Order: sequence, then structure tokens, then C-alpha cells
Amino acid sequence: MKHISSRDNPAVKALARLAGTAGKRGAPVLLDGVHLCQAWLQHHGAPDQAIFDVERLSQPDIAALAAAVPDRDCLALDARLMQSLAAVESGQGVAFLVTPPAPQPPLNVDENCVLFDRIQDPGNVGTLLRTCAAAGVKRVFLATGTAAAWSPKVLRSGQGAHFALAIHEHVDLAALLPGLRVPLVATALDGARDLYAGSLPERCAWVFGHEGQGVAPALLAAASLKVRIPHDAAAVESLNVGAAAAICLFEQRRQALAAR
Amino acid sequence: MKHISSRDNPAVKALARLAGTAGKRGAPVLLDGVHLCQAWLQHHGAPDQAIFDVERLSQPDIAALAAAVPDRDCLALDARLMQSLAAVESGQGVAFLVTPPAPQPPLNVDENCVLFDRIQDPGNVGTLLRTCAAAGVKRVFLATGTAAAWSPKVLRSGQGAHFALAIHEHVDLAALLPGLRVPLVATALDGARDLYAGSLPERCAWVFGHEGQGVAPALLAAASLKVRIPHDAAAVESLNVGAAAAICLFEQRRQALAAR
Repeated sequence: MKHISSRDNPAVKALARLAGTAGKRGAPVLLDGVHLCQAWLQHHGAPDQAIFDVERLSQPDIAALAAAVPDRDCLALDARLMQSLAAVESGQGVAFLVTPPAPQPPLNVDENCVLFDRIQDPGNVGTLLRTCAAAGVKRVFLATGTAAAWSPKVLRSGQGAHFALAIHEHVDLAALLPGLRVPLVATALDGARDLYAGSLPERCAWVFGHEGQGVAPALLAAASLKVRIPHDAAAVESLNVGAAAAICLFEQRRQALAAR
Repeated sequence: MKHISSRDNPAVKALARLAGTAGKRGAPVLLDGVHLCQAWLQHHGAPDQAIFDVERLSQPDIAALAAAVPDRDCLALDARLMQSLAAVESGQGVAFLVTPPAPQPPLNVDENCVLFDRIQDPGNVGTLLRTCAAAGVKRVFLATGTAAAWSPKVLRSGQGAHFALAIHEHVDLAALLPGLRVPLVATALDGARDLYAGSLPERCAWVFGHEGQGVAPALLAAASLKVRIPHDAAAVESLNVGAAAAICLFEQRRQALAAR
């Protein structure tokens, strides 16, 4: 394995620049830490490049990762060089440079899925991906304007959910609607049915919206079902989008489990 | 109203130091933005001090806040001075210096409530407070080791929930248990009942735990009910603590609404 101790090495310079492009369409990203790298190997095979803290290579979990990547694609960095990379925060001594998967969106959607309508906060997007995967959802569509799914913060709060989901990014949600073969369901405060007032579709396309503005009016108008979570409106105006999604997706899951 | 344009003014220097003490027990905090200041006025009356961006004082919502605070406690700062304060991020032109309420914990607890067991992330703590308030919970206990409830990030993600809750901080949760007159309910992966397998207590003390370690073993052992959210464990190991709490608290609320 090539050992690098100079900050001026071109490979190190390229890695240092990565933090600035995180989430740009088609840009490579750095998966930080043992868990994400293991998940990548399991789902997608070898990364474009693997970088290691040279002092940690003897650690069993790190050694196992190094053994799974062709030697020509591995770099061993001095500890201080590894720590200097902005995209590497975990301090676990390993990171994979990968090109995020960009699965082809299906022409027709006939499965349970979730639409992210310009959700801004990376922590919210990551938590939402984790909740989707936990609820058994397999496919999500992220509108243009949503935080980049493969950015470091979203990866961190996703806790591996990225590998259980087909993630479609930069989606024009309005253009998706004609291909929907399941009902579109939105959360709304006005003109909505109580979430608990009746049964939910077994499969649908849930849409969750922007933290401040909620779901875009055009999508709300296209929804065949609008539901309202009966929260204590005297206490707070609304719920966090991640909390609202967890409540909706697991109410659907509760009903589905009860119907079995 | 006193107008300050110098960075060397002692009042400005004291405000600049605040970001460093945010969340320390008994320390004053700066509430940032129109919404939080309005909520403080409504629930607690005048703040210790109100600071304004001098250029925004004619704005109606800002003027209304200024009119509600005794003039001797108001400071008008030059815009650049206001922006330089680390604890002021919203750029809305108003902040209140307040001493957070420290309500006396009750000797016995006979109401629905939530225990925060060393939840680290300020965003999680704020979202959890917001979810608690939305679910109709009125009292929460934050263990020592939990992110400070009145810190800027927690206030921001709480979205006003702080004013709908009695928040007890720096609590020794083990010492709280003998005074509990409601069952202690914890989420757990092992030895737990399916959340949806039966009815939940109408009132209980929910405990939600540390992001990595979960609920402390001593609290788990003391729980009279342990519930498991039936998530897709093949997809992700677990749910975010805020999502898990939303699912549990609203399942309890669903059952309570259905029983009416």
C-alpha cells in the first residue's frame, strides 16, 4: 500500500478539496468511518479509493477493510494528514472515496415510497432516510432543493439507511406525478383528514415538505389524501418534519401489521 | 432607549461572552428572534434585558416588543454590533437576555411525562421537546449529561416548545424513580413487548436514551414496561431517538383519543 506523509501529494490535495464539492451531482464523496465503509463494500463492492490512517492499519476491523480493496486503490496516510481532511470527522482511521449510486427512476411507481419536497436541513434529511428504511420503504425521491443525500452530515444521520434505499436525487416531483400508480398522500393542517380517522392506503407515495413552508401548493393540490396529525396545537404550531414522517409512516406500518 | 455603537461598551462585551456560557446552570441566555421573544413575554413577562438592531426598531413586530419592555432595560445596537454577537444568528434584529425558568421538581409525579437520559445532540433534544409539547406532555426531566435545554441550538429546534413545558434540568433520574406514581416505560430492543401489541398506559413516564448507548441499564431494569417499535431491522439497526419518541408518544395519543 502506498504511504503518503506529505500534504503536497496530489492525491491528498484532491481529497482535501472534496469537502467543497460534497453533494454536487455526480461528484465523488468520502464515506467516513468503519460502519459506512463496511456497508459500501457489502452493497456496492470496492470503492474508487480507500484511505487509511497508517497507525490504525493493524486494527482488525480496519485491516479487514484494507484486505477487501485492491492494493492499488489503497492509500495509507500519516495520522495528522488524515485528520486534516475536512470530510473526515469520525477519527476512525478509514474513509472510502466512492461515486454515489444514481439509480434510474422507474417509469411507473407502484410501491410504497416517500417524496422529499425541498427539505433543507441535512440532519432532517438523514433522519428521514433512516425512518423510511426503518418503516420498510425501499424507494425515495428527493426534489431539487433538498439537502444532498450523500453529503457527510446526511450520511452521518442516515446511519446506514442509504444502503437500504433506492435514492433518486434532483427529481422534479411534478413530473413524477403522472407515473404514480399509488395515491399521493400529504400532511397538511387545513382541509385534511385526521391521520387516525380511517385506514391508510397499504401502498402510497408520501410527500413531506420544506421545514418552513411545508409541502408545495401544487403537490398538495395533487394529493388524493391529505392527513393531519392531531397534535396539541395550543402548545406548538407544528411538528418537526422528521417527527411527522415517523408518526405517519409507522401509523401506516401499524395498520399493515394489524391487517396481516 | 440607550444607543450603543462601540464594541468596547461593557454591556456589549458581556453579551459577546454569553455564547461561551450557554446552558451553564443558572446562566442567562439570549433568546434570538421575534418568535422566541414574543413567547417569553407572553409566558414570563419582561426579560432582564432586550437588545435591538437600531435600524429595525421601526418594524412593527420589533416596535411592539420594544414597547413591552421597560425602557431602562432596552439597548439599541448598531447593526454590525448586533450581527457580531455569536448567540444571535437569526438576523431578525431582536434578542432578549433572560434567566431560564428553573421550576421546582414535584415530589411525586402522577402525570404523563418524559425523561431524557443523556441525549447528546442539541437538535435531537430540541426536536424531542417539540414532539413532547405536540403530544400534550406538560413536564420533562433532563438527566445530567443531556444537552442544555436553553442553549441556542436547542431553542431553535424546539420552536417554542420550551414555553409549553415545565423543563427540569440536571436531574438525577434514579433519584426521581421513588416519587413516580405512574409506570416507567422504556423503549428497548431486547425483552420488550411490541409497541402495537396491546394498550399503553394512559399516563406514564417515558424514558428515551442516549443516541449510541440507549437507555441506561439501571433505568431499563426499573421500567415496568419495555416496548419495541417493530421496524425493518434488516434495513437499519434502529431509529433516531427523536423519531422513536414521536412514534411512541403519538401511539399513546392515538389510543387515548380513540378511548374518548
